Amino acid sequence: MPEPLRVLVWGENRHEQRDENVAALYPDGMHTTIQRGIEENLGAAATVRTATLDEPEHGLTDEVLAETDVLVWWGHAAHDEVDDQVVDRVQEHVLAGLGLVVLHSGHWSKIFRKLMGTTCTLRWRNERDRELVWTVDPTHPIAQGVPQPIEIEAQEMYGEFFDIPVPDELVFVSNFSGGEVFRSGCTFRRGHGRIFYFSPGDQDYPVYHHRDVRKVIANGVAWAYTDRPARGIPVLNRHAVGEFDA
Amino acid sequence: MPEPLRVLVWGENRHEQRDENVAALYPDGMHTTIQRGIEENLGAAATVRTATLDEPEHGLTDEVLAETDVLVWWGHAAHDEVDDQVVDRVQEHVLAGLGLVVLHSGHWSKIFRKLMGTTCTLRWRNERDRELVWTVDPTHPIAQGVPQPIEIEAQEMYGEFFDIPVPDELVFVSNFSGGEVFRSGCTFRRGHGRIFYFSPGDQDYPVYHHRDVRKVIANGVAWAYTDRPARGIPVLNRHAVGEFDA
Amino acid sequence: MPEPLRVLVWGENRHEQRDENVAALYPDGMHTTIQRGIEENLGAAATVRTATLDEPEHGLTDEVLAETDVLVWWGHAAHDEVDDQVVDRVQEHVLAGLGLVVLHSGHWSKIFRKLMGTTCTLRWRNERDRELVWTVDPTHPIAQGVPQPIEIEAQEMYGEFFDIPVPDELVFVSNFSGGEVFRSGCTFRRGHGRIFYFSPGDQDYPVYHHRDVRKVIANGVAWAYTDRPARGIPVLNRHAVGEFDA
Amino acid sequence: MPEPLRVLVWGENRHEQRDENVAALYPDGMHTTIQRGIEENLGAAATVRTATLDEPEHGLTDEVLAETDVLVWWGHAAHDEVDDQVVDRVQEHVLAGLGLVVLHSGHWSKIFRKLMGTTCTLRWRNERDRELVWTVDPTHPIAQGVPQPIEIEAQEMYGEFFDIPVPDELVFVSNFSGGEVFRSGCTFRRGHGRIFYFSPGDQDYPVYHHRDVRKVIANGVAWAYTDRPARGIPVLNRHAVGEFDA
Repeated sequence: MPEPLRVLVWGENRHEQRDENVAALYPDGMHTTIQRGIEENLGAAATVRTATLDEPEHGLTDEVLAETDVLVWWGHAAHDEVDDQVVDRVQEHVLAGLGLVVLHSGHWSKIFRKLMGTTCTLRWRNERDRELVWTVDPTHPIAQGVPQPIEIEAQEMYGEFFDIPVPDELVFVSNFSGGEVFRSGCTFRRGHGRIFYFSPGDQDYPVYHHRDVRKVIANGVAWAYTDRPARGIPVLNRHAVGEFDA
Repeated sequence: MPEPLRVLVWGENRHEQRDENVAALYPDGMHTTIQRGIEENLGAAATVRTATLDEPEHGLTDEVLAETDVLVWWGHAAHDEVDDQVVDRVQEHVLAGLGLVVLHSGHWSKIFRKLMGTTCTLRWRNERDRELVWTVDPTHPIAQGVPQPIEIEAQEMYGEFFDIPVPDELVFVSNFSGGEVFRSGCTFRRGHGRIFYFSPGDQDYPVYHHRDVRKVIANGVAWAYTDRPARGIPVLNRHAVGEFDA
Repeated sequence: MPEPLRVLVWGENRHEQRDENVAALYPDGMHTTIQRGIEENLGAAATVRTATLDEPEHGLTDEVLAETDVLVWWGHAAHDEVDDQVVDRVQEHVLAGLGLVVLHSGHWSKIFRKLMGTTCTLRWRNERDRELVWTVDPTHPIAQGVPQPIEIEAQEMYGEFFDIPVPDELVFVSNFSGGEVFRSGCTFRRGHGRIFYFSPGDQDYPVYHHRDVRKVIANGVAWAYTDRPARGIPVLNRHAVGEFDA
Repeated sequence: MPEPLRVLVWGENRHEQRDENVAALYPDGMHTTIQRGIEENLGAAATVRTATLDEPEHGLTDEVLAETDVLVWWGHAAHDEVDDQVVDRVQEHVLAGLGLVVLHSGHWSKIFRKLMGTTCTLRWRNERDRELVWTVDPTHPIAQGVPQPIEIEAQEMYGEFFDIPVPDELVFVSNFSGGEVFRSGCTFRRGHGRIFYFSPGDQDYPVYHHRDVRKVIANGVAWAYTDRPARGIPVLNRHAVGEFDA
């Protein structure tokens, strides 16, 4: 892993401007709160920047992406406003080795749905359920340093069936007080990129101030790093007999 | 699938003889109740016999196993009384193609632990939790014909971390009213044998009378069938160049 | 499984019209040869139709797809000519339960890439390699009734790295005489749909006349069937406490 | 990861004493050659010791295992001479967090078979096949720093079907010049322990002097490390409502 790891937190940054309760919970924006949680855990091992929807090209130019090791994604109310060309660009970078951490309502983002190939729909209810996040893969790097279970006092409920491909690794499963379960921590490899989806977190609750949630996000960021192959984005390769890559 | 499928339900049959409440719930023995649930769902497509711990060789002679397509296993209080030679014999048959459905406290049986290679420990509490069994793999044959979720009013709690290998397929995840989650329906392939572990079911509750639980067990039995390869149990194979099996 | 299973073989049908050697190998079109291989193996259990690129809407109207249980896809030279709206429509049907069997150069089709989320690139060489297709999951329904290995005398080479998500199940791995390996039989679940990718098959070789290749394709078709859920394509579901689907 | 990582290479050390050609290839013993390959790659980040079959308790006392982070295992001619109690002890340590790297003919060792639950049989031939080791998971830490493919001029052939559980991760697949394929690099999690099986390597060929093979083994050692949970080996846990581990 290079030091420092170059992390970019992308936030939609709309709820913070129009919903009073969100602004109260996240006065500097959710993306900034997420950024600080990563900095708090990774310290000098990472430099963490932010970008938001309303910047030109949503702050996700080819140059910015080329200088990013891991991208963290939070969106909710304005998924449709994300430009298709930017989504294609992010996908290309992920397939070429950019790490991606998708948070909560980001399950419904264009980029996540495009990388999964499924609807990414789920069951939900916003009525202050208690969420308990249980580790089912105790040696996974993403699960280190958090209690069994992580307790989140008040949360939006996300429940099964969650329409994703079978995850490569299932790290966390959540219990909601209303009776539901959810595969809340899942990893996927797509091309040379590693993807971690983590569901806790919502604009209506102070979840990104929760110590253990911050720890998991930072763990996910560190895990999602991979070397980008020098040869760049793979293409169709014609090879003569005995002509290997070595 | 041959018709009829030859199914053998193995029951420990001890609680039924010494615990009044168990005898009241299962007057003909738990194994008989499980047998009837399979017959009820598979009808003429299966012939279902039973065997119990106190029979000679626990009713699991080589001849019996050779004439069985799928074995269903329930044990709890007397795992240690199961003879190691019989366990080795069952393992050999599973690896050669015998299907195996392991129920509830069978997670701690010698045969399941031997096939898994892990401790198969879990978290538990016997205090009438409500269990909700959620399907997370909706096209899996084992999940057909049951509601989302299956509701079991009163149950022993089984919770994570469940110390098993990562399942080949995760079909069900349970929510318990006390706050736990559990990977309650898991499949594994071992050699030529298919294994389904399903956790609902306990001697202290009428779970094996539950319509949906019976349906899942019958689905699991049908799924676990495989042709036993004609060549018998595989051995180390030395092959000359160009000498294949075709 | 309903009887008969409604199967639709989609073929690009271009090489057959412009390449003499292809026309000689497949005088009635590759799609027809594939159709006959399925009929030969599934008999009365299936009705198999065909559709081709040059039909209106490529023969893949909403009505046709709604009356299809499993779609088989072969394309190569004209992937780009497949209309994006038709691709979106096929994806919607797959996510709602349509089975999909993708053959050989179909790895590079719009529909497969869209469902996978990756580039689906691979290594290749068209110089008459011998391909040996080894079964690595001997109890899988798709691997029944074929020799170990399947021998294909002359083939285009497809080699790793194959840029797909980790398959849910790896059924076949191929050896090429030039030294490459390939994950040649892979299954994926996407939404309510089951997908089987099988790589043997090329316009320049008589691979779809090969008895074992035909058997595998027919097995794949039977395996890919699932009940389409009555409720149709899933959407975002808001549920009150205690309001389940049961 | 602690520095230095405490690695123990266990070698059977019998072929070296009785076979002239093996002694010529590995004058200091295969275990020493493997040890040096790890030291060469991990440098100061690891301290690497060795132990052999003929030491008391095979050099694998409880004290030694408790002070080991990752155990590397090579055996072949004398699997049966390994004491069952020592095997049970190693299994307990693996389930409690000891990393395990199993090499080549170690597939047939008591410890590997016990952890897998299957026969671990395979197809083989010792006639100087060329082996090409292809990476199928290019971002996996174990696959870093080696060419695509790794070329091994002369090798014993190991082929499918390899009777192991489906690996958690498939990292390498090998092509043999005789036509076979083999899942040559596989990971498994068992309890708190991580296991890596890597098939290249044989007493009759200088495989453990091969630069890339040494790199993969060192990568596997680094990958297999996990923190051993402070609570020790897990046991059956009874928990009251609301009594979690936090």
